[in-house]
Amino acid sequence: MKDFFYPESVAVVGVSASPTNLARAIVYHLIEFHYTGRIYLVGPKGGSFMDHMIYPTIVDIPGRVDLAAILTPAATLPEIIDSCGQKGIKRVVIESAGFSELGNERRNLEEQVMAAAQKYGIRFIGPNCIGVINKENGLAIPFMPFRDTFNLGSFSIISQSGGVGAALLNTLATEHLGFNKFASVGNKLDTDENDLLEYFLEDKGTETIFLYLEGIADGRRLMEIASRSKKPILVHKSNISEASTRIARSHTGSLSASEEVVNAAFRQCGIKRVTDMGSTMLALKAHSLPPMRGNRLAVVSRSGGHAVVAADSATKHDFVLQPFPGDFLRMVEKRLRAGVIRLDNPMDLGDLFDFELFQQIVSDTLARANIDGMLVVVNYNGVFFQDDSRRLVSTIKEACLELQKPVALCVVTSDEEWRLNRRNHPGFPMFTDPEEAAQALAISRDFSSRRLSTFAEVETFAVDKQEPLAILTAAKARQARQLTTDEAFQILSCYSIPVAPWAKVSGAREASAQAAALGFPVAVKVMGEQFVHKSDVGGVLLDLKSEAEVGEAYERLTTLIEKTDPGLKERSILVQRMISEGHEVLVGGKQDSTFGPIVLVGLGGVYVEVFGDVALRVAPVSAVEARKMFAEIRGGKLLEGVRGQPPADLETLLEISQRISQLMCDLPQIQELDLNPIKVLPQGQGCFAVDCRMILA
Amino acid sequence: MKDFFYPESVAVVGVSASPTNLARAIVYHLIEFHYTGRIYLVGPKGGSFMDHMIYPTIVDIPGRVDLAAILTPAATLPEIIDSCGQKGIKRVVIESAGFSELGNERRNLEEQVMAAAQKYGIRFIGPNCIGVINKENGLAIPFMPFRDTFNLGSFSIISQSGGVGAALLNTLATEHLGFNKFASVGNKLDTDENDLLEYFLEDKGTETIFLYLEGIADGRRLMEIASRSKKPILVHKSNISEASTRIARSHTGSLSASEEVVNAAFRQCGIKRVTDMGSTMLALKAHSLPPMRGNRLAVVSRSGGHAVVAADSATKHDFVLQPFPGDFLRMVEKRLRAGVIRLDNPMDLGDLFDFELFQQIVSDTLARANIDGMLVVVNYNGVFFQDDSRRLVSTIKEACLELQKPVALCVVTSDEEWRLNRRNHPGFPMFTDPEEAAQALAISRDFSSRRLSTFAEVETFAVDKQEPLAILTAAKARQARQLTTDEAFQILSCYSIPVAPWAKVSGAREASAQAAALGFPVAVKVMGEQFVHKSDVGGVLLDLKSEAEVGEAYERLTTLIEKTDPGLKERSILVQRMISEGHEVLVGGKQDSTFGPIVLVGLGGVYVEVFGDVALRVAPVSAVEARKMFAEIRGGKLLEGVRGQPPADLETLLEISQRISQLMCDLPQIQELDLNPIKVLPQGQGCFAVDCRMILA
Repeated sequence: MKDFFYPESVAVVGVSASPTNLARAIVYHLIEFHYTGRIYLVGPKGGSFMDHMIYPTIVDIPGRVDLAAILTPAATLPEIIDSCGQKGIKRVVIESAGFSELGNERRNLEEQVMAAAQKYGIRFIGPNCIGVINKENGLAIPFMPFRDTFNLGSFSIISQSGGVGAALLNTLATEHLGFNKFASVGNKLDTDENDLLEYFLEDKGTETIFLYLEGIADGRRLMEIASRSKKPILVHKSNISEASTRIARSHTGSLSASEEVVNAAFRQCGIKRVTDMGSTMLALKAHSLPPMRGNRLAVVSRSGGHAVVAADSATKHDFVLQPFPGDFLRMVEKRLRAGVIRLDNPMDLGDLFDFELFQQIVSDTLARANIDGMLVVVNYNGVFFQDDSRRLVSTIKEACLELQKPVALCVVTSDEEWRLNRRNHPGFPMFTDPEEAAQALAISRDFSSRRLSTFAEVETFAVDKQEPLAILTAAKARQARQLTTDEAFQILSCYSIPVAPWAKVSGAREASAQAAALGFPVAVKVMGEQFVHKSDVGGVLLDLKSEAEVGEAYERLTTLIEKTDPGLKERSILVQRMISEGHEVLVGGKQDSTFGPIVLVGLGGVYVEVFGDVALRVAPVSAVEARKMFAEIRGGKLLEGVRGQPPADLETLLEISQRISQLMCDLPQIQELDLNPIKVLPQGQGCFAVDCRMILA
Repeated sequence: MKDFFYPESVAVVGVSASPTNLARAIVYHLIEFHYTGRIYLVGPKGGSFMDHMIYPTIVDIPGRVDLAAILTPAATLPEIIDSCGQKGIKRVVIESAGFSELGNERRNLEEQVMAAAQKYGIRFIGPNCIGVINKENGLAIPFMPFRDTFNLGSFSIISQSGGVGAALLNTLATEHLGFNKFASVGNKLDTDENDLLEYFLEDKGTETIFLYLEGIADGRRLMEIASRSKKPILVHKSNISEASTRIARSHTGSLSASEEVVNAAFRQCGIKRVTDMGSTMLALKAHSLPPMRGNRLAVVSRSGGHAVVAADSATKHDFVLQPFPGDFLRMVEKRLRAGVIRLDNPMDLGDLFDFELFQQIVSDTLARANIDGMLVVVNYNGVFFQDDSRRLVSTIKEACLELQKPVALCVVTSDEEWRLNRRNHPGFPMFTDPEEAAQALAISRDFSSRRLSTFAEVETFAVDKQEPLAILTAAKARQARQLTTDEAFQILSCYSIPVAPWAKVSGAREASAQAAALGFPVAVKVMGEQFVHKSDVGGVLLDLKSEAEVGEAYERLTTLIEKTDPGLKERSILVQRMISEGHEVLVGGKQDSTFGPIVLVGLGGVYVEVFGDVALRVAPVSAVEARKMFAEIRGGKLLEGVRGQPPADLETLLEISQRISQLMCDLPQIQELDLNPIKVLPQGQGCFAVDCRMILA
């Protein structure tokens, strides 16, 4: 990937002398951004532009070409890629539109482009993108017009939309923050965000990475790359309203909507999700400061009101406001007009007009071992104390950089002064409001203290997969969409997941006998795909206390089966020992189209149905993550034993969750799985699955 | 209040020729803001400043004075107010600090000021404030230095903090939005926010009102004024972290923390709560546009990525994206390059370079009867299409104002162009991001469709208050902190709130006999203040099924009482019929120090304790509001009857909630009330309170 950003020569293909020619903007940019390499222009009509000759074809270029930037009609691309190959060009950026984004009929054209590239070992970015920018060497090839108002910074950007990417660059320029590298990935036909992300992890100039994605190319790979990143990764994943229209067909599915999976996956691998320009800029500003490595915050303000607001925000974002030590306060007190200042944390220095003392208070506080960062509010109104305030801003920045602890500095002043301060301190973020400042510090702290859920810590249980695979193969052979209950129970048994004792029965007499053997009370249930919602159609008879009741129940269900599906060969009826005690818990699984197998848990019954109280993770799930899932759901507290109840057998439940996670990873043939309910008995007494649904992929 | 803003002459008191004199800034402002009235300066040392003579005392001023702005040491104030009175001045703004904000020992000084003012019928604002500004006539008397970079606008501002108020004025100036009137209220010794708010409701120049409050002077009056406002009212209520430290002493109390009361009260009276500068500006921008009177939104964007982001935001904020009609789409299609544009809502016009057509699409769409507002994204990069884009911005604004429907316009461009557009269209808000734009439109829509809960609709039940008052008087006489259970039950009976049948008993034999009369099973409970948490100490014995069991229970509780409080004269024991069926619901009440009586409801048991799932209102509560409360709690669905259960007797429960509301209003002697649980039986079968706690004020 590095070769996309550090070519020693670039060919711009598609240039003509016509004033409406868009490729001319690419040439304009290379000059405007002071590109340090050689520039060649290519266009069939020849001529020249900006003192550069236009060669009729790529092969006419005299020197070596490291990168080609192409903006020609889509149909010409296969041939042009071929020319690139002949010329020995190994990196190409295809900015032309008119490919699969216009419909599937253009897939063929994309395949031709891909084939041509593969023939010569060419890697390319695009099509349908605005190209790349590298602020380090002035490589800037978007056809969208920019002026180079950007500072060289440490953010690198991967954007699936040229417009959204450009908007971010503009906003960074407004804030005088700058960026390092920019890549617009478009249709991601060859190079995708993961390729670029992986490169940015290694790239020296890049310290923080932002991605705007409308689709995720490979969720698992994204997670894998992000998990090993020491650099903050921010992702704005849009296109979420469309996702919400895809309503999953079954109950568990509807609770594990893609959005929740994205959120869970990002949390697991330490990606910070941002949702709009405001939250993006806030996170980028957060990571422009030295990191906040702890939770202990000091607040100093030149306005009483802002001290109050800052205290609210600090509390809201769970910061600890350490009290200032007594000797320090006495030193400050001595040098102040008496009694008009609240010496506390937040410290309101509204009446302090000794700017050197203000500066000293900030530096001394920041240097203290028990302070991890500061929020400082400097108010001035651009008429009085202008020079003093500007100097204060400078010295606070210096203290922050010298001590390598973050100071989120709010400069509350006129527009003119605000812009002047920003311009004077490029790369150093400023805030307009204590809430914004506190949010940024919280982002930094949360990044420093993030705990990734690494798949490496996952325990693997010894399981013989022969029987599950045989069951799934047989089900596939009969074109089943769902396993029967006894098949599902058998697979659970192979994974050592305890099921309430059960037996498949044929005939009322066998049913009664089995019930007696299992122990009363029992339930009698129909099985089979015809009865997805078996409770609703009277296919489950509960709390049967004698052989006679069981025999009668068997006959009733036989009648039901005959009415529902007279041709059903086998009378699929099941007797199961009832477990009346315990909490009802749901453990489910699903194959997500982007992130693969996921696991979700919740308290059964009304908690899931009415409160939607579930937690989910991308599988495989470690013991630690399984525990976190139950801690995350609000109902999780019930398992600890509230209102005099004994604590539940959480350890067994955690193992079941991990085993289900392994099952979902082992058996992608199972699209959805739903253990609902699992009866969770008091500590040490185990858990028993009572019902199970497995829907096939 | 009007006289504070439209004086024909102002005396600035406390001016001297010294360059460190702060009152000089007041004079500077009156000139900088082009005050249209006469200006008099007063200061003991005389001299002159900015061509105005300084009179030694107020009575030396030759002409009539309508308003005095005072910035002198706190101790001089009583005398100066007296001079004002002698001079016939009726309105005073006291900007001096050094009063009760420094501690209670300065209350005396405040009382002297108050007495002097009352003697002459003087109304004053302050002390400890930065005064008022009226952009209409140039009256500007803050001592904090401003330059007049402000447009005349339609927002008026009431701020308890000078610094926070000034920050808002600066931000309004940055956004070229302007304001109408500004008042800093400081210690609110005489004039408070309610006085000013009431005036701003009438004031012609004011269309939207913002308040920054660290404390609420009179919550009920604020609600009353806000309820009759047709103008949007925004409040930033800060100082919430301190409030969270005041932990209420009992269970119900802890759930009804002041923050929740503030939120409930604001919702009830239609106040929009904002939390920081970002949300304040967003709401002010929202109300700078014509109102969004419905939910039907059209989105048009010049960038595909922003169209996607806008669709996400529109969905997030519950807008309906109406499809464009077919004939309209065909008209657009005809005039476009074929096939490179998604003609949908959101409409991505990325490839459209015919700016007149773009403008026509916006106007035609906005004019449609089934469109309530638009979100339009205009991207350009300041090099190409600069003039076209600027003209587009102008014409979109004109269409918005002409059709009186809101267009939230995102201008995505360079900093320079952004500022130019803003400067060219003062008073018209612009947005940088679709999410921001959608949020603003949602605020406008929510204001248009707000439904106030007016206390006028509240039903009053016929209740004889004699007995309740007698019980409370007796309890007060014995210095009780809490009523005994039987007293609480008696008060409930007076309010026709059904209680599970009960009897107070003396002796095991009477207990058994009463139990038989009430019907088994019964519970036997201790009463009295010693047993606040009677269940925890074994003071409640449940599910007693025979006279023998009841007799035994009585003896056990007698022993318990003797152990706990041997001197207790009366053996306070109660037998109560058990109601084992039904949902457990909590209805509680509390006297809030700011808003007075409040009512809260929740599902009992784990729903309240574990999920904290409660709803609350400032009392009195109408039938409509009571219904909304139960709809608001997540557990409310359970009462409708999920999973095959019958619907609960919600109607009776609503009446109980209203009666509790009336009780809390009638009897402020009760500080907290807690009906927990109420057993709610199926529809038509009623509700029964099982336990009740009433804590005295």
